[in-house]
Amino acid sequence: MEIAVFLIQCKDQRGIVAKISDFVFRYNGNIIQSDQHTTDPENGQFFMRVEFGFDPQIVSRKHLEDEFGILARTLHAQWQIHYTRERLRMGILVSNHDHCLLDLLYQCNSGELSIDIPFVISNHDTVRETAEHYRIPFYCLAVTPDTKIEQENKIFTLVNESTDFLVLARYMQVLSESFINRYNRPIINIHHSFLPSFKGANPYRQAYERGVKVIGATAHYITANLDEGPIIEQAVERVSHRDNVDALIRKGKKLEQIALANAIRAHTEFRVLRYLNKTIVFA
Amino acid sequence: MEIAVFLIQCKDQRGIVAKISDFVFRYNGNIIQSDQHTTDPENGQFFMRVEFGFDPQIVSRKHLEDEFGILARTLHAQWQIHYTRERLRMGILVSNHDHCLLDLLYQCNSGELSIDIPFVISNHDTVRETAEHYRIPFYCLAVTPDTKIEQENKIFTLVNESTDFLVLARYMQVLSESFINRYNRPIINIHHSFLPSFKGANPYRQAYERGVKVIGATAHYITANLDEGPIIEQAVERVSHRDNVDALIRKGKKLEQIALANAIRAHTEFRVLRYLNKTIVFA
Amino acid sequence: MEIAVFLIQCKDQRGIVAKISDFVFRYNGNIIQSDQHTTDPENGQFFMRVEFGFDPQIVSRKHLEDEFGILARTLHAQWQIHYTRERLRMGILVSNHDHCLLDLLYQCNSGELSIDIPFVISNHDTVRETAEHYRIPFYCLAVTPDTKIEQENKIFTLVNESTDFLVLARYMQVLSESFINRYNRPIINIHHSFLPSFKGANPYRQAYERGVKVIGATAHYITANLDEGPIIEQAVERVSHRDNVDALIRKGKKLEQIALANAIRAHTEFRVLRYLNKTIVFA
Amino acid sequence: MEIAVFLIQCKDQRGIVAKISDFVFRYNGNIIQSDQHTTDPENGQFFMRVEFGFDPQIVSRKHLEDEFGILARTLHAQWQIHYTRERLRMGILVSNHDHCLLDLLYQCNSGELSIDIPFVISNHDTVRETAEHYRIPFYCLAVTPDTKIEQENKIFTLVNESTDFLVLARYMQVLSESFINRYNRPIINIHHSFLPSFKGANPYRQAYERGVKVIGATAHYITANLDEGPIIEQAVERVSHRDNVDALIRKGKKLEQIALANAIRAHTEFRVLRYLNKTIVFA
Repeated sequence: MEIAVFLIQCKDQRGIVAKISDFVFRYNGNIIQSDQHTTDPENGQFFMRVEFGFDPQIVSRKHLEDEFGILARTLHAQWQIHYTRERLRMGILVSNHDHCLLDLLYQCNSGELSIDIPFVISNHDTVRETAEHYRIPFYCLAVTPDTKIEQENKIFTLVNESTDFLVLARYMQVLSESFINRYNRPIINIHHSFLPSFKGANPYRQAYERGVKVIGATAHYITANLDEGPIIEQAVERVSHRDNVDALIRKGKKLEQIALANAIRAHTEFRVLRYLNKTIVFA
Repeated sequence: MEIAVFLIQCKDQRGIVAKISDFVFRYNGNIIQSDQHTTDPENGQFFMRVEFGFDPQIVSRKHLEDEFGILARTLHAQWQIHYTRERLRMGILVSNHDHCLLDLLYQCNSGELSIDIPFVISNHDTVRETAEHYRIPFYCLAVTPDTKIEQENKIFTLVNESTDFLVLARYMQVLSESFINRYNRPIINIHHSFLPSFKGANPYRQAYERGVKVIGATAHYITANLDEGPIIEQAVERVSHRDNVDALIRKGKKLEQIALANAIRAHTEFRVLRYLNKTIVFA
Repeated sequence: MEIAVFLIQCKDQRGIVAKISDFVFRYNGNIIQSDQHTTDPENGQFFMRVEFGFDPQIVSRKHLEDEFGILARTLHAQWQIHYTRERLRMGILVSNHDHCLLDLLYQCNSGELSIDIPFVISNHDTVRETAEHYRIPFYCLAVTPDTKIEQENKIFTLVNESTDFLVLARYMQVLSESFINRYNRPIINIHHSFLPSFKGANPYRQAYERGVKVIGATAHYITANLDEGPIIEQAVERVSHRDNVDALIRKGKKLEQIALANAIRAHTEFRVLRYLNKTIVFA
Repeated sequence: MEIAVFLIQCKDQRGIVAKISDFVFRYNGNIIQSDQHTTDPENGQFFMRVEFGFDPQIVSRKHLEDEFGILARTLHAQWQIHYTRERLRMGILVSNHDHCLLDLLYQCNSGELSIDIPFVISNHDTVRETAEHYRIPFYCLAVTPDTKIEQENKIFTLVNESTDFLVLARYMQVLSESFINRYNRPIINIHHSFLPSFKGANPYRQAYERGVKVIGATAHYITANLDEGPIIEQAVERVSHRDNVDALIRKGKKLEQIALANAIRAHTEFRVLRYLNKTIVFA
């Protein structure tokens, strides 16, 4: 027995849930969880996630995929299939702000997150010890304006072979559009503000200056538009006039850990669908 | 076109989502939202909510129900069907604590809640004006230890004819087990604490004495065991040493409004299934 | 016995808490609550709130004020004194979005807020009934581009005489800079977003389009810069892809009620000091 | 210059804030933060925290303490003084549940918490590596019913010499009343439920069985009554029917980290006063 997840999106149409759940049934699957969302009762977009167990000795992966491809074409649907046995490989890029890194390494190590981490890349050597404590290969690739293209190429070579998605766990460097396009797989970033408030640099300083009473952190997919990609998760906490910029930074670290880990969990459990510049995140 | 909701529970079994969604499809329905939950991948209990549009000129309600009954028997499933066109009738019982009452009357009047309120019953005449402002018939049935049985009988006569469920919107009287059994329909209570903490009387006083740093309110179905029924919704808020009992009561009022209104919304949108002493609340 | 509150701000200086608390002691007062904040240990700005009981038969208000004025001058401090016996008079401006209005009328009527409401002004006659149910005089002053100046003049006449501050409880009209300057007293607005996100019109629509996972409401003082005034209070709640614009509006109503009522409570208990474009809100 | 904190409690009395702030002024101190709380305007209990800078070359610690002792006697006050330069020494006891341990080690190492950790004691050797990664001495003292007294004696010897307070960072062993009395310094425990709900063993299992919609964690001082000591901090998070016991445990870990770290921060910044079975926690 193994477990697979279909992620499907198409124009809403009558009978679609029946067709997909019947497909799973006919190919001997057993639905574990099924979620569905339609943006609009009339003429909307349809999204579905079906997690099901199946016996690959009865129905091979290839057969399942081929057959589902036929159904999907009749529905004019985009779709993906994931097998939970195939752990995703997550490349981590990080600066010397290592709180998110540590949280991810801990959760992967303790089994709370079922992800493989082939390596950690940082532009600072200071986080080497943390990565190595968890027995994760570490690469220090310092970036200067002059070496940015060259270093991105090195990063690309590393990540291209051995990762399914990237996480910028407070990387603090802007990846070039060219890199994003070449990599062409999901990249999750944690922004240390409640987006769309306080885009750009020093968001806690901005929050302090504006005098907000709640701060936040935002995990989102990277697109070519900085800080504008689809939001996956946000975490918030109350603050007061007593919180200076240092206190906001300290409180924000917890929010960044929480928002990023929740986003990565949702992504790696194949609960996230992207549509327009937004996400459907099935619970 | 009208809209119906199936609520189904049974032992988990292979193909069940397919069978139910296929049923909707064959009887010409169009699924608007479908949610499903299994308590345990192996040998669990299965719960499903299917909201769908259908054309009663093509398939009558009676035919739909008869045919679904046949399917349900093969699944050994318990099930209900609700038609969203049939607005539920909610009887409100309240004391002189009228904040939840006002919130419910406002939300029903403004259309945020699609419920009919045939009347408000209180043991205090002070809330008459509020009920009548919203043009809801009002009955004052004061309760003393001597008149409790007699008054419950009067309440029963009123609610038995004209309500689908009752809400104790801070009623502050314990309904007898006999009343609960005779009424035999859902009764939703708002308890002014974060259950199971602080059951019984004066929960804000208890919370103050214990020195908790967060208070809550709990909306739950009434069972014969006071404050022990299945929880539908809870709302919480931070407090500090500065909050005396009056401040806790004041902050708690908002929590009670929120938890009760959310619970009623879920109940009247047929999103709640009961199992053991718990609830499945589909989002 | 009566109760007064000093609100004081000045450059931080050694001995200032001692001088102010000693002043209260010498003039026979008894400190009930004292709060103090310094923006920066070195060279910062000092803020203080002192709530104290005193006997006006021993020390008259005038004497208290004259003497404190002398102390304040030596400290180069700005200060105000408020007597809690003098209830503030709050003018309410509202559109046909009446949920905040109702909440404020209820809380003032039940004594949770100790404020007088001389009247409610709306550009829609639909809220008349609600105001009159609470026996508050109601004025309907519809606004069109052509009549805006004229109507603002009428509003000014009403509020100038009989209010200590104004609340825009979802008024949906922009007050002119000239009006704001002439009125020259605090004006509290509720903005239906988590500022600085989603300034301007239709913030829930903006939030929906951006796909945020948390929405908010912001109560702030009005300045000439729309949606840019000092924030007093913010309330937030999680949302998901299931929440369409109508659901965001509905959830937001609760947030608006909470943020606005908390801000008004803080303001009328003289807990708010303004500094730069921010607020100190003493708990 | 150094910084000291007075924590004072006594019966409320007129002039007390003035006397204390005047004391600081006369002994050449400069108040950095001053907080005060009275339980009840009439006849209440008074609590104060004063953080101030002073020059030990002008006023020695001993002189400050002697002189304040004289004032305190006239006020019939209990008091403590703490010097922020003297970092508190926190002994950590932990089981193999190491998430709180890791969070505390990280925060102490990064300077977010200004505390010295002389050692980590565990009844499991599995956490040794984590402690040693942060260069903290580690002692494994396994406990069986037979060795409990003997091991407690070893623990006592270790902690008695070199700690100012203890933290049970998910220790999962009940300390004997005799140990608590002998140690006679603060002991902070993290309980993995929203107390007073779900005392005792397996609180997440209890929460799951009861079907609560919000879970919590509670940091509290240990007293002889298990799970009944004064609450310092609580953290909460929403859960749903989808969260099985494992999911509650996973979500709870974050809450335990947050509640415990916040409580320790408050304790070590000398913001906590105990009164009856409750705490005053100054912000």
